[in-house]
Amino acid sequence: MADHNWTGCVKSLKGVILDMCGVLYDSGEGGGVPISGSIEAVKRLKESDLQLRFCTNETQATREKFVAKLQRMGFELSISEVFPPAPAVVSILKERGLRPHLLVHDDVIPEFDSVDKTNPNCVVIGDAADKFSYKNLNDAFQVLIGLEKPVLFSMGKGRYYKETDGLKLDVGVYMKALEYACDVEAEVVGKPSAMFFQSVLNDMGVQPHEALMIGDDLVNDVGGAQQCGMKGLQVRTGKYRPRFQSVYNYCEWHDQIELRRVISLLLSRWFP
Amino acid sequence: MADHNWTGCVKSLKGVILDMCGVLYDSGEGGGVPISGSIEAVKRLKESDLQLRFCTNETQATREKFVAKLQRMGFELSISEVFPPAPAVVSILKERGLRPHLLVHDDVIPEFDSVDKTNPNCVVIGDAADKFSYKNLNDAFQVLIGLEKPVLFSMGKGRYYKETDGLKLDVGVYMKALEYACDVEAEVVGKPSAMFFQSVLNDMGVQPHEALMIGDDLVNDVGGAQQCGMKGLQVRTGKYRPRFQSVYNYCEWHDQIELRRVISLLLSRWFP
Repeated sequence: MADHNWTGCVKSLKGVILDMCGVLYDSGEGGGVPISGSIEAVKRLKESDLQLRFCTNETQATREKFVAKLQRMGFELSISEVFPPAPAVVSILKERGLRPHLLVHDDVIPEFDSVDKTNPNCVVIGDAADKFSYKNLNDAFQVLIGLEKPVLFSMGKGRYYKETDGLKLDVGVYMKALEYACDVEAEVVGKPSAMFFQSVLNDMGVQPHEALMIGDDLVNDVGGAQQCGMKGLQVRTGKYRPRFQSVYNYCEWHDQIELRRVISLLLSRWFP
Repeated sequence: MADHNWTGCVKSLKGVILDMCGVLYDSGEGGGVPISGSIEAVKRLKESDLQLRFCTNETQATREKFVAKLQRMGFELSISEVFPPAPAVVSILKERGLRPHLLVHDDVIPEFDSVDKTNPNCVVIGDAADKFSYKNLNDAFQVLIGLEKPVLFSMGKGRYYKETDGLKLDVGVYMKALEYACDVEAEVVGKPSAMFFQSVLNDMGVQPHEALMIGDDLVNDVGGAQQCGMKGLQVRTGKYRPRFQSVYNYCEWHDQIELRRVISLLLSRWFP
């Protein structure tokens, strides 16, 4: 971590955006488990003068149920602080008069209750996990290929995430599959979309250079934030794997640690 | 069909390679149905002085069972004339001492009986259809991501094919999915690989410019053949869809017709 970057960032810092899965907790059977020290880290951030928001590509539950799960784990956070892709997609669908065919997790379907889904003219995919069967992917493909101008929304474009029993394929993998099948480019809603990060910055009322994004994904968290003008920092928890350090060398802060240590460092320098 | 192309090709033509699904038959429940006129077209080709081979990316059955199915439909062809990807992959695996994790259709597994599959150090995917579940794709992903240098073989890279009840996703879609998940490039065995076409040309003992490939797929049949120095011709059966004409305009022969008419034209000029 080069001192000039760190010092400059800390001086102007007004807001922190935290990725959730892999930073706060590891997902898995029974909802997952908190990562050691992260509950305390969130608490310390909340007690500081920094603005705090949570930005996730989680699409396996409604925002309400997802936040309730995190609260049960012990995290202090409220629904209005959490930004997942589904509500953002719903806004876009309504704006553009689109009727989606959904290939999403059963538990996130209620987010789309207010949207007309008859005679679909687009496809929305999320992290559907076991629902990514051949039949279901084929059904989504047949809707797309039958449209004169296929429109595909992907809630995130992650490659994989870590559950307690290992790495699992994420929605981006199926986005690439459908993009190839139909020769289309998906519209990504969620990280690393600049529009998605900007909506969180707007909510905090801070400029990009005044904000720090902390996540475990170099492309979707760190890279996305940097392309948006924010600082990005990767933690060594979640899906972090040392072999990718050499592949993705665009992250400015190379010290990759767990959230607890990041926040300790951050706050100790913030309040010297 | 510009006369100068047609005449030049017909004059030097010594061999014809036929794609199978979408040219000879449409696949589907019960094995599929012959395309009208194609049984007679194959018969006429066999009675001519032209060499004839069949080149398929079919990976849902052993070569023996696949040929038996075509024979039951009424086609005159023998196992030695049919070139699918699985035997070619088996040769490569043995040459390079690779032990595959297989994500393939159950019915093609016997092709791999002679290959050591313990402690896999590569992944082979074929058109696994309903076996492309989230769990099975995740299992293949976990093998790949666990290798220091992931090696992925894909038996073809087709986007989709036509069954009697509609278009179905092909292996290429899942190849793209795993490529993205693991940041690797698959080695494609089957069409449009030049090595694969060359092995068929070698078997016929003809040069590329003396051979014509007839298929329903502009990328894998026509494009692959042309990149190999052969002529390529697309029929209007199988997965042919008019909207793709404007997208792929690199095929030299633009008259796109069914096999019966292609062969009629070919033989009437060949034997004027």
